[in-house]
Amino acid sequence: MTARLALGVDLGGTNARAALVDPATGRGVAAHKLAHAERSPEAVAAAITTAVGEAARLAGVDAAALGTAGVGVAGQCLGSSGVVLNAPNLGWRDVPLGAMVAGALGLEVRLVSDLSAAAWGERCFGAARGVDDAALVFVGSGVGAGLILGGRLHEGGRGVAGELGHVKVSPRGAMPRPCGCGEWGCLEAYAGGMNLATRLREDVADGKAGAVLAAAGGDPGRLSASAVEAAYVGGDHYARELWAEVGELIGTASANLVTLLNPLRLVLGGGVLLGCAHLERIVRAHLADRVLRAARRDFEVRRAELGDDAGVVGAALLGGGAHSHEQ
Amino acid sequence: MTARLALGVDLGGTNARAALVDPATGRGVAAHKLAHAERSPEAVAAAITTAVGEAARLAGVDAAALGTAGVGVAGQCLGSSGVVLNAPNLGWRDVPLGAMVAGALGLEVRLVSDLSAAAWGERCFGAARGVDDAALVFVGSGVGAGLILGGRLHEGGRGVAGELGHVKVSPRGAMPRPCGCGEWGCLEAYAGGMNLATRLREDVADGKAGAVLAAAGGDPGRLSASAVEAAYVGGDHYARELWAEVGELIGTASANLVTLLNPLRLVLGGGVLLGCAHLERIVRAHLADRVLRAARRDFEVRRAELGDDAGVVGAALLGGGAHSHEQ
Repeated sequence: MTARLALGVDLGGTNARAALVDPATGRGVAAHKLAHAERSPEAVAAAITTAVGEAARLAGVDAAALGTAGVGVAGQCLGSSGVVLNAPNLGWRDVPLGAMVAGALGLEVRLVSDLSAAAWGERCFGAARGVDDAALVFVGSGVGAGLILGGRLHEGGRGVAGELGHVKVSPRGAMPRPCGCGEWGCLEAYAGGMNLATRLREDVADGKAGAVLAAAGGDPGRLSASAVEAAYVGGDHYARELWAEVGELIGTASANLVTLLNPLRLVLGGGVLLGCAHLERIVRAHLADRVLRAARRDFEVRRAELGDDAGVVGAALLGGGAHSHEQ
Repeated sequence: MTARLALGVDLGGTNARAALVDPATGRGVAAHKLAHAERSPEAVAAAITTAVGEAARLAGVDAAALGTAGVGVAGQCLGSSGVVLNAPNLGWRDVPLGAMVAGALGLEVRLVSDLSAAAWGERCFGAARGVDDAALVFVGSGVGAGLILGGRLHEGGRGVAGELGHVKVSPRGAMPRPCGCGEWGCLEAYAGGMNLATRLREDVADGKAGAVLAAAGGDPGRLSASAVEAAYVGGDHYARELWAEVGELIGTASANLVTLLNPLRLVLGGGVLLGCAHLERIVRAHLADRVLRAARRDFEVRRAELGDDAGVVGAALLGGGAHSHEQ
């Protein structure tokens, strides 16, 4: 029984989660979450090791006996080499995390981007269950996608596929907004929660987003997508204009993904998208309108079902071999 | 020797080409091209049968003994069922061409879109040779892409992947242009040779494209991308503005494809793109500028190498099994 458990780790900007997952059901039999106080690769690898050890202890298994682990990272990962190319939330570039964790745990480690892991989790046990061509579109503090194509996880030639947050969407003629990636006019510059908060603070300073500030309790530090949503519900003009713009950008970029790749399922995930009903409605309306007709055949949009567990479940399954993408 | 030949057919809006291809070299050992005078499915299937018979006769083989054939069609194909869903140039919808040709030839037929076939041809023997993640971006009378992902042809959940011509690109605020697909604001509405000629005629009627008209010999019926290119070379302001706009749209859409899918090779094809050096230069400049940095690693842009043969070669290889996408 325990021999069939798969070990997954989900590494975000502030936390590492480890879980033992039953590959037959996708359910975690034990999980541990640990904040990593500092962001040095060594400290993070140590936090992962501790979390894995605790999860294994809770499940009553020997972690080293599991053989393999999947590690999902909020960043760009060169899966084949175990290197994190770029993880902005951790301030990392070219960190050989796979080898570090493998060495510490005595396991073979498969590194994967967090959204690829989440897409795989949703595909195995969530909103894209059993669908061979599916995409996860995630809008949270950042924006990205996970792609399941022809039944396999698509990570691209160098492991960085799925970067929907960095497709260029700025209207010609308008000054594009800066993105955390160092470029301009990326979808994430408009739709990502982090960049959205920056824009809201600018607009509040310009006296343009009073109702949103009020919804944030008057605290510019609490300006967020949910404050925009609350102001929208209250009928605020600024919030309505902003959601119309952001919803059109997310909806059009997602529709273009569908037109290009012809998935049969689009899974919407992330706190900004799933926490703001009006924004989600606008995104869905643009999707319904802008996907090429031929690609609408048997096509469905659904909300993610696994929530925060998608990443750790997907990582476990990708790492464990039971539902490996190589199959 | 002849037992190893693969039979390919390339069906365009006005011609059917058949070729016997050596799967080891990609070279055709015999080819036949036949105009199909009328566009009814029966007439086209008969033209294909005749072309195949002639090609087989030239190669000295018995077509029926080949067992399988690949047929590339300028349109959206549900490969798994052999149905052409939509072929605007032929005026077809839901035509079971695969079964018709299979019945007439006594062969198993694999239907595929012409750009998927061309991408596969370039991947096996042309500009994307040996590359497991590659995309063909084609700008001719229409616009589209062929996608090789993880070493396999990606046709999508219902066979219509690669429709880059129908991603929405119109700037917000501006009135989007109509597309042949019945929608608005598609890349093809701006960049496809057919729609470009329509726009040129409108602009000539508005007195705006005099130098382009002159480059077309004063004949509005001959307005084309090459006339724009000629006017551009002559320093014409209208032509420069138009190529700046069209080049940015093609370059940005192609860059977004690369950011999303992380291919290592982008192959440029089609008469509009390869026949207009300044347009190609502008497209390449936007590609160099707008692809996400992480996706530029080991990434290259190349011109298609197989020309008009790519489709028939790719169809033969996809149909024949020797380089099947299932492998």
